[in-house]
Amino acid sequence: MAEEMPAHDLVGSVGIVERRYHTFANPDSPFRLENGSELPEVTTCYEMYGELNDAGDNVILIEHGITGSSHAAGRFQPDSKYAGYWDALIGSGRALDTDRYCVIAPNALGGCRGSTGPSSADPRTGKPYGSRFPAITIRDMVRAQRPWLDAIGVRRIRMVIGASMGGMQAIEWAITYPDMVDGLCLVGSNAKQTAQAVAFNHCMRRAIMMDPNWRGGDYYDGDPPRSGLALARMIGHITYLCESRLDREFEMRERHPWPQPERDDYVRYEIEEYLDEEGRKLVHRFDANTYVWVSRAIDLHDVSRGRGSMTEALGRIRARCLLIGISSDFLFPPQQVRELAEAMRAAGVDARYWEMESDSGHDAFLDEQEKLAEPLSGFLGEIESGSDEWDEWDKWDEWETNRAN
Amino acid sequence: MAEEMPAHDLVGSVGIVERRYHTFANPDSPFRLENGSELPEVTTCYEMYGELNDAGDNVILIEHGITGSSHAAGRFQPDSKYAGYWDALIGSGRALDTDRYCVIAPNALGGCRGSTGPSSADPRTGKPYGSRFPAITIRDMVRAQRPWLDAIGVRRIRMVIGASMGGMQAIEWAITYPDMVDGLCLVGSNAKQTAQAVAFNHCMRRAIMMDPNWRGGDYYDGDPPRSGLALARMIGHITYLCESRLDREFEMRERHPWPQPERDDYVRYEIEEYLDEEGRKLVHRFDANTYVWVSRAIDLHDVSRGRGSMTEALGRIRARCLLIGISSDFLFPPQQVRELAEAMRAAGVDARYWEMESDSGHDAFLDEQEKLAEPLSGFLGEIESGSDEWDEWDKWDEWETNRAN
Repeated sequence: MAEEMPAHDLVGSVGIVERRYHTFANPDSPFRLENGSELPEVTTCYEMYGELNDAGDNVILIEHGITGSSHAAGRFQPDSKYAGYWDALIGSGRALDTDRYCVIAPNALGGCRGSTGPSSADPRTGKPYGSRFPAITIRDMVRAQRPWLDAIGVRRIRMVIGASMGGMQAIEWAITYPDMVDGLCLVGSNAKQTAQAVAFNHCMRRAIMMDPNWRGGDYYDGDPPRSGLALARMIGHITYLCESRLDREFEMRERHPWPQPERDDYVRYEIEEYLDEEGRKLVHRFDANTYVWVSRAIDLHDVSRGRGSMTEALGRIRARCLLIGISSDFLFPPQQVRELAEAMRAAGVDARYWEMESDSGHDAFLDEQEKLAEPLSGFLGEIESGSDEWDEWDKWDEWETNRAN
Repeated sequence: MAEEMPAHDLVGSVGIVERRYHTFANPDSPFRLENGSELPEVTTCYEMYGELNDAGDNVILIEHGITGSSHAAGRFQPDSKYAGYWDALIGSGRALDTDRYCVIAPNALGGCRGSTGPSSADPRTGKPYGSRFPAITIRDMVRAQRPWLDAIGVRRIRMVIGASMGGMQAIEWAITYPDMVDGLCLVGSNAKQTAQAVAFNHCMRRAIMMDPNWRGGDYYDGDPPRSGLALARMIGHITYLCESRLDREFEMRERHPWPQPERDDYVRYEIEEYLDEEGRKLVHRFDANTYVWVSRAIDLHDVSRGRGSMTEALGRIRARCLLIGISSDFLFPPQQVRELAEAMRAAGVDARYWEMESDSGHDAFLDEQEKLAEPLSGFLGEIESGSDEWDEWDKWDEWETNRAN
């Protein structure tokens, strides 16, 4: 998952953006986490595009994926080569239209891009938390965003949207604060983590912890575990793509002749070089502890925890829901996203499913984000009008008939 | 991939077996590898079940997967808990019937279970090759088996069979020595490595090389890179399973409460503990250099190399071919195996496809090996009679019609 995307054309762009910060809680009045431990201070780094109206109810809240940040749109400098990760979707006249909506994008709790996370200084000691950072959950990420949104004047959320881990936060939002959320859009994500995804995350954590620089997570006074984090990223990156895309893009093209001995830096195929480069790119902008803590939060994701059953949990949702599956997604197979939509409907929720046709795998939500514009516009139109007017949604009856056969 | 399987009932078992060894080449007359380098000595460790007939033409040759060995059937000791990896398929009255056939199973070149590999002593120095072991290919594995089979009196191979990397060797056999092979059976394998599989193998090699004990591959005078090899195995193991199996077997069952801090040895879910255990199990019986060298041989697998085109390469095959895809195989998707069968037929080869219905992923060729008995018996019957008598093969015309639509 790329954090930033190449800058698109500037017509409609939100332009130059800046990070903002909000802090709440203090050692006397800490933020209590789902597992009972406490954080003495919670800072949320965020970006805002468009104007918050007086009623504070024209908000689109965007949640990011595992290695994302608050930088969803625009550029930090006029000459930035890269724009925010959903830049093509956010701006004047774009699907998430900043003429009408106030689009707000936070960095998640546990992150390393401005919000409180393992690399932040513990105000009680002045030193980075490191291994002392408490275990957090997706639900904690969501609950930590409420005081911040209250403080900046947000009263209602027209739509909360996220892909991948962002979708996990989005659905938690609609369940934790059902009366505040009008619309939920989840892209390539789920309501409960799967065993296969845990298996990959476990290998990624092991890779980080195998790096001699890991030192139990307390590495801030020395070299960080770059090799381990890079390998974790490489493993993860394979799951963000898909076989057909890998074969199409790399086709086993060779980089080096093969009679070379098997040295540590030897790569024969372009795909190997590409993965090494993906790993290298991440370590310059990301903290290994955040990778460990946030991947654990993902593994703990289960909206039904403490809520009776999955049906009861989903039944809490009052928002209109749009679930988007990516046809070639290996990590969050479209069939599972569709089944979640079905489970929502069975729980009495107003849910619709749309499949993004793509041969790019999970990362299509970034790489082919333009494809999301039409369904998002259609969905927002329905939220505003309160009707079902966009007729491109999945033919539900047809699907149910097919499934019954 | 498990090397050994729990012992099945003893009726028909090949009983107590022993490893045998054959060595050829010497420093003055070395074995020349595909990349031009040379091995001064090649030892093949193998097992034999059943009697070789006088004509030397009743042979079934079995090739193993990446972490396998020559131990395909029987037990080493009467009280062994485990039998060879395809024990249910090999024996008196079993699919690979030792009353009729002489079943021969070698450990591949590059291996660490008795055949020459990176952990073997270089006869020129008396020390393990380590980083000085030359790059090998699947074709080298096959070519190294020819002098050994000649020496022990094998004249024809009724069927060469292998799954996974074993299938890669099997198809190379049928192409390199077309006049010696009557039948080829390939299970969950291919004719050319894919970019996605290279990507996973690359991460596995990186995991091994990140271990401080790796020392460039020259670790035999100290501790081997156990953590790295274990992590490589864990990554590989995920690809041998499939999502539905992981979800079915592990169901996100929890092992430890989650308010625990994120320590190096912390596991929350059973799937994490299971993967750790799979990693630990391998390091006791396997050499990290073999994992690196043999995974590279797999990545170099391409039967068309130096043979004009894939069609020309496949067109060399004179053997009757059975290609078996595993319905839930993630690593070698059944569609690809089927396409290989189609490509073979297009090249004029007598190929049939059969799909093993399984919800167990790639490892089904071991875990559900009983399902292979019927097609293997049917296929061997056809090889013997020279006719097409088993009518359970894929309905080819139907399939081609469907594909055309």
